[in-house]
Amino acid sequence: MPFVRIAVYESTPAAERAAIANAVYEAMRETIDIPEGDRFIVVTSHGKEELFVDPKFMGIERSERFVLVHITLSQGRTVEKKQALYARIAERLHGAAGVPTDDVMTVLTENTYTDWSFGKGVAQFVLNPPAWVKRAAKEG
Amino acid sequence: MPFVRIAVYESTPAAERAAIANAVYEAMRETIDIPEGDRFIVVTSHGKEELFVDPKFMGIERSERFVLVHITLSQGRTVEKKQALYARIAERLHGAAGVPTDDVMTVLTENTYTDWSFGKGVAQFVLNPPAWVKRAAKEG
Amino acid sequence: MPFVRIAVYESTPAAERAAIANAVYEAMRETIDIPEGDRFIVVTSHGKEELFVDPKFMGIERSERFVLVHITLSQGRTVEKKQALYARIAERLHGAAGVPTDDVMTVLTENTYTDWSFGKGVAQFVLNPPAWVKRAAKEG
Repeated sequence: MPFVRIAVYESTPAAERAAIANAVYEAMRETIDIPEGDRFIVVTSHGKEELFVDPKFMGIERSERFVLVHITLSQGRTVEKKQALYARIAERLHGAAGVPTDDVMTVLTENTYTDWSFGKGVAQFVLNPPAWVKRAAKEG
Repeated sequence: MPFVRIAVYESTPAAERAAIANAVYEAMRETIDIPEGDRFIVVTSHGKEELFVDPKFMGIERSERFVLVHITLSQGRTVEKKQALYARIAERLHGAAGVPTDDVMTVLTENTYTDWSFGKGVAQFVLNPPAWVKRAAKEG
Repeated sequence: MPFVRIAVYESTPAAERAAIANAVYEAMRETIDIPEGDRFIVVTSHGKEELFVDPKFMGIERSERFVLVHITLSQGRTVEKKQALYARIAERLHGAAGVPTDDVMTVLTENTYTDWSFGKGVAQFVLNPPAWVKRAAKEG
């Protein structure tokens, strides 16, 4: 259920953009328990007159390889899972596309399981709650 | 007050993009009580090297007609209203632009009534709370 | 930590887009206590067949100079700070790029301090909580 928007500089070749999208998907699979095929990703590329990034903020060295990963996902991940996700995205982007880990920024926005319709005009998680929705309902 | 971002494939003709934007606006009008003229929508189109969508996830058949509707709106809609919204968006996209209902994905992100400025540098819902804000304040 | 997406019409010259991004950054610095260098902004430009805006909603007169500022930021700003932010963004966009204040729309989406990784695969605010995170933890 994550929906991912990725922004890169336009100097990033198309093949690399696909590798980046796939690496983010694999990192989510490994760390935050998303099912196989839950892959909805938009990668946009931008010139320097569109994407403005501080090169040094927080003691990090950013370059033209900068990748901004913005993930919208259902709430409920622990801080530890989020930390594992950040680490794995950076590792996989480095491994799959040679992106320096300094150049990987990840931002999460959480919503709830009622906020998703994957098709056919229905809210799949409301009609057929997966195990994690039932767990969340019990705890909440 | 919803702000809507819609992503489609670049094969979607411009006239169809306008029909899609309008259909989403009409569906919101019919199901989640937004006022006339509350229409702020960005439609972006993407090549296959930018928009990555699983063709089968959750038993749905997605095609090049895929439409991703991402709506940022104030919190407070019931699950029933959200379900009505998903259904109506799918119906209207099918009616207005022939989009198969399998190809319509909708995602919501909620914020609060203090998170909107429609112009002039002021927070209109804070200065002049509409009825739904007053109801929410009473309940909260 | 804010991440900002700005949408303008494609008639906006590149130099003006940079001025708009910078004005939003300066307005955030002045009103919502962000550190120097916390500047991560994407500006996208759109034709009229992509960006659909009601010209009159809420008694405001919108034109081709319309600027949509969508800010993702950590929760915790008071309503007063948000109001100061909206006012200052409108003032600065007018001063820096001549954008009529009627044409400035601002939308906020809040997340939490655990939702940010600025690089190196780590969650900086979790590892080294800044003062505002400690304050929020005490109050929450």
